Amino acid sequence: MATISFARGAPSLDIVDVEGLKEAAKLAFEQDPAGTTAYGTSVGYVPLREWIAEQHGVAVEQVLVTNGSMQADAFLFELLVQPGDAVIVENPTYDRTLLNLRARGADVHMVELEADGISIEALENVLATGLRPKLAHIIPNFQNPAGYTLSAEKRAKLLALAAKHDFTIFEDDPYVSIRFEGEPIASMFSQDQDGKVVYASSFSKTVCPGIRVGYLVGPQAVIKQIQTLATNTYISPNMVSQSIVNQFARSGRMDGAIETVKTNLKARKDAVVSALQREIPEAQFANPSGGYFMWVELPEGVDAAELEKAAAQREVQFVKGSDFGGSANTLRLAYSGVTPEQIDEGITKLADALRSLGVAAS
Amino acid sequence: MATISFARGAPSLDIVDVEGLKEAAKLAFEQDPAGTTAYGTSVGYVPLREWIAEQHGVAVEQVLVTNGSMQADAFLFELLVQPGDAVIVENPTYDRTLLNLRARGADVHMVELEADGISIEALENVLATGLRPKLAHIIPNFQNPAGYTLSAEKRAKLLALAAKHDFTIFEDDPYVSIRFEGEPIASMFSQDQDGKVVYASSFSKTVCPGIRVGYLVGPQAVIKQIQTLATNTYISPNMVSQSIVNQFARSGRMDGAIETVKTNLKARKDAVVSALQREIPEAQFANPSGGYFMWVELPEGVDAAELEKAAAQREVQFVKGSDFGGSANTLRLAYSGVTPEQIDEGITKLADALRSLGVAAS
Repeated sequence: MATISFARGAPSLDIVDVEGLKEAAKLAFEQDPAGTTAYGTSVGYVPLREWIAEQHGVAVEQVLVTNGSMQADAFLFELLVQPGDAVIVENPTYDRTLLNLRARGADVHMVELEADGISIEALENVLATGLRPKLAHIIPNFQNPAGYTLSAEKRAKLLALAAKHDFTIFEDDPYVSIRFEGEPIASMFSQDQDGKVVYASSFSKTVCPGIRVGYLVGPQAVIKQIQTLATNTYISPNMVSQSIVNQFARSGRMDGAIETVKTNLKARKDAVVSALQREIPEAQFANPSGGYFMWVELPEGVDAAELEKAAAQREVQFVKGSDFGGSANTLRLAYSGVTPEQIDEGITKLADALRSLGVAAS
Repeated sequence: MATISFARGAPSLDIVDVEGLKEAAKLAFEQDPAGTTAYGTSVGYVPLREWIAEQHGVAVEQVLVTNGSMQADAFLFELLVQPGDAVIVENPTYDRTLLNLRARGADVHMVELEADGISIEALENVLATGLRPKLAHIIPNFQNPAGYTLSAEKRAKLLALAAKHDFTIFEDDPYVSIRFEGEPIASMFSQDQDGKVVYASSFSKTVCPGIRVGYLVGPQAVIKQIQTLATNTYISPNMVSQSIVNQFARSGRMDGAIETVKTNLKARKDAVVSALQREIPEAQFANPSGGYFMWVELPEGVDAAELEKAAAQREVQFVKGSDFGGSANTLRLAYSGVTPEQIDEGITKLADALRSLGVAAS
């Protein structure tokens, strides 16, 4: 009996285009051996930087390609956040973001996340106290951990607040391409008139995580400063993997890869939804329209930490919501790495674990 | 007329085994698609970590594979060096090491480098003042920028000083494999009885720089702490490139690649030596027995900054010694990226530049 993991936000191998990657690697070494094997520069592999700039309709000087988007986050925090600086994050939010901001000594303020994104009212209340954040970290699409998406209306309001109160919005958007349904919503970065938004994304969810290629797009002056940090940290990011991503993107593999990921993840998400409705009907959740994650609220009084232990005994894993700042009765289910069959079995076992706690399933 | 650069320590494309890399990439995706494309962990790609551990005869828990050895340096400094901490470096030393230590607020003490390595007498004098360094940064083989190699005798004395005065030796050894002649000298790490040495190296000089794979080997407790820093910084380093290096190493390509690099770099070094002897006989230098670099001392009164400008007018580049902490009349020549023909032309032009300053060539 193998463990069924709803814990880690990572794709299973069957939805990674390994053949496409192998072909892209061949092309990378054949078509640009010098650029692929040399140090390059801290801005990243130049043709990939150009491709990203085209995708976002910005100047290349506004783009910096990094070793994964976590490294991009680290650079941005290093540049903008000093000990004691106030930073807004969503509640719940990505646990590693919380950890890294706290490690920098930031004064972290968690603001309630609703199904249509961060509560603007709650944010305005925080700002009304006179707090002047340096940065607001926002995951706009299919948020980690909640799976929620920030509405267009709230995006406009956030931009206005950033302009008024002079803070940077860090639009952290790794899941944007994995939309199952509905129309994409314009990024805050694309609507930013005031140079207040720095945008990050990654190829971890569209190509593969092991390729470790992420990027920042932002005002030229910010990117220039981060370039200096990057040079001093590692001279240059990985040229081999960035050249592979470049070939993967330009040879037309990217669209097919994203289609494969979307089709499969939608099926997995649907499997979680129907298994939850069948097995744990008292679970509350919003049906995600994309991404890797679903946020589940169990009845008051259920302790997700206890549930975690009972689930582990049944070889099922998830992450309890309190790790992300959520309340004791919440949990995050990642469906990116499990097949529909595993999901069905896993949720059935999770329900059994829940019942073992003495909490009535309706 | 193309610029002839003695400035950058990077190999030219003709000494990189591009075919071998292409083949290794193919094998990486074919033989371990899951391990190559997944996030992996912060310790690095497990089979490569094992290979490195075998090479050094240590437990795998003593090895951490990083995105280039500069990133390894950054983690080690982050762990060990707090603002105000005293750190010993060689004079001259790698400019980026100086920059990063100073950026951390370290109290940097430069200790004279001699042709057989750091002056033990000068170091003892510094320690006799009561200074208690946290760290001594030493590049033992074919040092950057000087090309000098630390003798076995001085290695033993350094180890004894580290044990006596309780400081860590950071043995930064990226050039070790590029030895042209003579027997290898045992690393300080391999002789360390007191857990005082952390060793770093890289595949930039043996595979290629764009692959960005470096590593640390050290006491298990230190590696464990750095693993936490690595997880928080980037989750995991580049699995794709580490898997490629693993295949490159295990398929027997590594030895051939190193042989190619050594043969060609020795020819380049010999070309610099004979061109200097012919064109600038007043230049003083030690003949390097390996590596990328040569340290040249010009007569007193020659200003390398002026020479740099005169050389640039003749489309020849080098780095002036003062960038590495050296005196005004010194310069670093990197011969890794230029062919013997370019070297001959470049040194001839450099001599012309020198004469244009009104300094008599003998």
